[in-house]
Amino acid sequence: MARARNVLWIMCDQLRYDYLGCTGHPRLKTPNIDAMAKRGVLFTKAYVQSPICGPSRMSFYTGRYMRSHGSHWNGWPLRVGEPTLGDHLKKIGVRNVLVGKTHMAPDLEGMKALGIPPESMIGVHVAECGFEPYERDDGLHPTGRPRPKYDEYLRQQGFEATNPWEHWANSGAAEDGSLQNGWLLVHADKAARVPEEHSETPYMTRRAMDFISEAENDGRPWCLHLSYIKPHWPYIAPEPYASMYSTDDMIPVIRSDRERQNPHPVFGAYMDMRYSRNMARDDAREKVIPTYMGLITQIDDQIGVLMKFLEERDLLETTMIVFTSDHGDYLGDHWMGEKDLFHEQSAKIPLIVIDPSKEADATRGTRSDALVEGIDLAPTFVDYFGGKVPDHILEGRSLLPLLRGPTPPGDWRKVAFSEYDYAMQDVRLKLNQPIERCRLFMVFDGRWKYIHASGFRPMLYDLETDPDEFLDRGDDPQCAGIIARLQAELFDWALHPNDHITTPREKISNYADNQLQVKGGILIGIWDEAELAAIKDGIAQRAKM
Amino acid sequence: MARARNVLWIMCDQLRYDYLGCTGHPRLKTPNIDAMAKRGVLFTKAYVQSPICGPSRMSFYTGRYMRSHGSHWNGWPLRVGEPTLGDHLKKIGVRNVLVGKTHMAPDLEGMKALGIPPESMIGVHVAECGFEPYERDDGLHPTGRPRPKYDEYLRQQGFEATNPWEHWANSGAAEDGSLQNGWLLVHADKAARVPEEHSETPYMTRRAMDFISEAENDGRPWCLHLSYIKPHWPYIAPEPYASMYSTDDMIPVIRSDRERQNPHPVFGAYMDMRYSRNMARDDAREKVIPTYMGLITQIDDQIGVLMKFLEERDLLETTMIVFTSDHGDYLGDHWMGEKDLFHEQSAKIPLIVIDPSKEADATRGTRSDALVEGIDLAPTFVDYFGGKVPDHILEGRSLLPLLRGPTPPGDWRKVAFSEYDYAMQDVRLKLNQPIERCRLFMVFDGRWKYIHASGFRPMLYDLETDPDEFLDRGDDPQCAGIIARLQAELFDWALHPNDHITTPREKISNYADNQLQVKGGILIGIWDEAELAAIKDGIAQRAKM
Repeated sequence: MARARNVLWIMCDQLRYDYLGCTGHPRLKTPNIDAMAKRGVLFTKAYVQSPICGPSRMSFYTGRYMRSHGSHWNGWPLRVGEPTLGDHLKKIGVRNVLVGKTHMAPDLEGMKALGIPPESMIGVHVAECGFEPYERDDGLHPTGRPRPKYDEYLRQQGFEATNPWEHWANSGAAEDGSLQNGWLLVHADKAARVPEEHSETPYMTRRAMDFISEAENDGRPWCLHLSYIKPHWPYIAPEPYASMYSTDDMIPVIRSDRERQNPHPVFGAYMDMRYSRNMARDDAREKVIPTYMGLITQIDDQIGVLMKFLEERDLLETTMIVFTSDHGDYLGDHWMGEKDLFHEQSAKIPLIVIDPSKEADATRGTRSDALVEGIDLAPTFVDYFGGKVPDHILEGRSLLPLLRGPTPPGDWRKVAFSEYDYAMQDVRLKLNQPIERCRLFMVFDGRWKYIHASGFRPMLYDLETDPDEFLDRGDDPQCAGIIARLQAELFDWALHPNDHITTPREKISNYADNQLQVKGGILIGIWDEAELAAIKDGIAQRAKM
Repeated sequence: MARARNVLWIMCDQLRYDYLGCTGHPRLKTPNIDAMAKRGVLFTKAYVQSPICGPSRMSFYTGRYMRSHGSHWNGWPLRVGEPTLGDHLKKIGVRNVLVGKTHMAPDLEGMKALGIPPESMIGVHVAECGFEPYERDDGLHPTGRPRPKYDEYLRQQGFEATNPWEHWANSGAAEDGSLQNGWLLVHADKAARVPEEHSETPYMTRRAMDFISEAENDGRPWCLHLSYIKPHWPYIAPEPYASMYSTDDMIPVIRSDRERQNPHPVFGAYMDMRYSRNMARDDAREKVIPTYMGLITQIDDQIGVLMKFLEERDLLETTMIVFTSDHGDYLGDHWMGEKDLFHEQSAKIPLIVIDPSKEADATRGTRSDALVEGIDLAPTFVDYFGGKVPDHILEGRSLLPLLRGPTPPGDWRKVAFSEYDYAMQDVRLKLNQPIERCRLFMVFDGRWKYIHASGFRPMLYDLETDPDEFLDRGDDPQCAGIIARLQAELFDWALHPNDHITTPREKISNYADNQLQVKGGILIGIWDEAELAAIKDGIAQRAKM
């Protein structure tokens, strides 16, 4: 191989599966993303490990389930010593670089206890979740919080304000030019007050290209996480994207009155959240969805710019390119706003992987229906760079076999898992649940989606006969067998986490297989000298074999 | 309170529950330990979190289950950043000091990744499992391993050898004075070659007293973990303890032929281990058990010395004293040697707690049948020192309510858990189990002991009708309801670990209860200015209340 291999890992925020041309949206224009699908594999059953930014991302960045990394909510610090993708790539000489959002909160107390200065090289690595923060920008910057570099950029372009991010890029302009609060749904149809070229998506794309240019001189291989903060709210797009789509372009809402009749208590509480009640309104959907679509096409255009840039630098042939999202957005479907639960609109994500290797030529332009999880990317990248996947730490699996062979390996996972903790939300108060009992667990086998809710009956959907997930069969006696089967899967999963992160399987295997205890002089329950001599003789005989 | 409070936490190694006078042994003399039981509470149902040294101790030292601390076996390093009792005590100004064994293996790779020099103050704290190692001695020192200070001590007394620990303290002397290998069971009836005063138990007792003397000048409160390495094998006692007990003093073996008829595969594989086959021999029991008893009486005598020392220094009134063990020893019962499984001989431990506080006067000399776990000690100590128990990290519960009230609190645990991982043992090879599937889980409700074995049917014992645990009812259809109930307990436990160690419950409670998201400027799914104003108004109203 003449050149170092790289990974460009593009993530959108809150982009749901079915809002791309290649995943079936009839009106949304995403030609550049669709072209990526033609050059790689489009995964049709990819699920996040928690349908909310922080925990989902911590799973992507650690390759581990939420119950293993322990960061259940936005802003819950990832514990010091929790191994990240960056740790694994560092060991094999690959830079792990960030442009955009991670939602990482550093474990300052843990760092202090271990004497790690936050400003040191290691401190930054730990505090930034294993990324070299070329440009960290979490995308939500209400006044009073630390300011992003992007604020400074806007000021340099002449966009002055106390909070340029909010004032220019995320506020809407009324017809009379007056500023409208971009956080509010009623203004989602207004154009952003910033010209398109200075809005967040092209800015981040340029920052990614800046890094790639610099990296060419550096020479080390890299994994660049370009993490866009759109189409996440505030739902405000600059022109021409603000008026690119109209209500005529919207796909029909996916919901049924049946869902509101005697719903599962947790689902009921979520439908009753303010953002759900608002997004269930037709006028809110009509304000938000065309803008959401515009923001996606803007990303698509920027991906076009980026691909051209890579092509000109001859990087397409050596760079694995991944396009995905951290979770979806209900957009009023199922009478819900935001994400939170496990319907396809929320827990399922678009995932396209382009493996430039020759071995992957046969799968180009194909779709894979294999059950894939967000935690699969970290091992995929380690594998792609030629590293040994630390399978006692990572809980995902490398996708390379799916990219380089026509069918998944025989032992590919039979169920996908996702988790949620609503302790931080009003739902806990409404349901009067103890803080430690606000847990939801999804087990999906490709047809049946089982949801365990601590303290309540389960939910169950049959996506074969009920693809829209309108009928919760969690209390249907006819489904008892299905529920028992998926519950057993969850039980088994819960009992076997990758918790022994300091001890690799090779060490375990080597120990029992080679009688290392006796060799080390620890003699347990041996009767006498004759037995000891026989044991040692056996070891010596084996060594000769 | 005039003086700082202290904790003296005495742990024996491999001392089973029923080998003390106060727990019912008819011939074993332990007057000093019995006297402790009279001054405190004797817990009759205390269980370790794994019946093997390393994992059990890591649970004691972290206050967390094995699945949470991740150290499944002796020598599996405790991950950097895993909070220990020492971390919690440090925060409230209490020294956590070690004399004796911990079986801690430092996570050198993790420390290196975080830039923690092992020789630094923090490095030692991390590497020693949160202890200030006044005298670290893990008690097993075959030639070729790093040497303990005790070796040097023996040399100073004139006991020269390449390996004084083995040559003098843990080898037996035949009648002709010749050295006999103390690791071998056949020599367990020989006296140790070292005079009693220089053997390990009195040496460690003196080291504890050295520390306590020094600590009087230091002034800070302390928690001293005096961790004896006996009666753990090598089963070799010095005189007069070597010949103090005879086969006449042995209690009858607890085993039934029934146990060997079609046993559970895991139990069968353990009965077939070399140490089990040997310890099941009557001649092995007759060699080992009198010596095991002698080693216990030696500990008891040393505890007498220690109590007198504390009394003379007026420390009994301000020092909580705990006497316990890290697991039991089958000693041939159930056709088993060593520990490994969850029979009472293995998973149950003696536990005596003397709380010197006035509030505990009413319980002195009583017994508690509450289900208690090894992980309860860490929160008990934090509580005793007046600290706030970090209940999002610790998985045990403070015993103070049991020590200071006649009955356990209404929400006291209904089941006790213990875990085991046999991946490092020949049993894995015999059973041909994958490395990650060698897990055993005990759930005990005070009557029924249910054992989940990954990949096999469960085991089940009814301690009410079958106190000796001879009849495994794991495949008895009549017990299906019991099994389902205890399996549900295990399932629930498995789904709710204390994994979010960076985020305390107060922070969670405070957030949802106080609308901190809106206050911080993150406005999700709010329709318009009027709704926003109403929300802010509501927050302001609440603030006034």
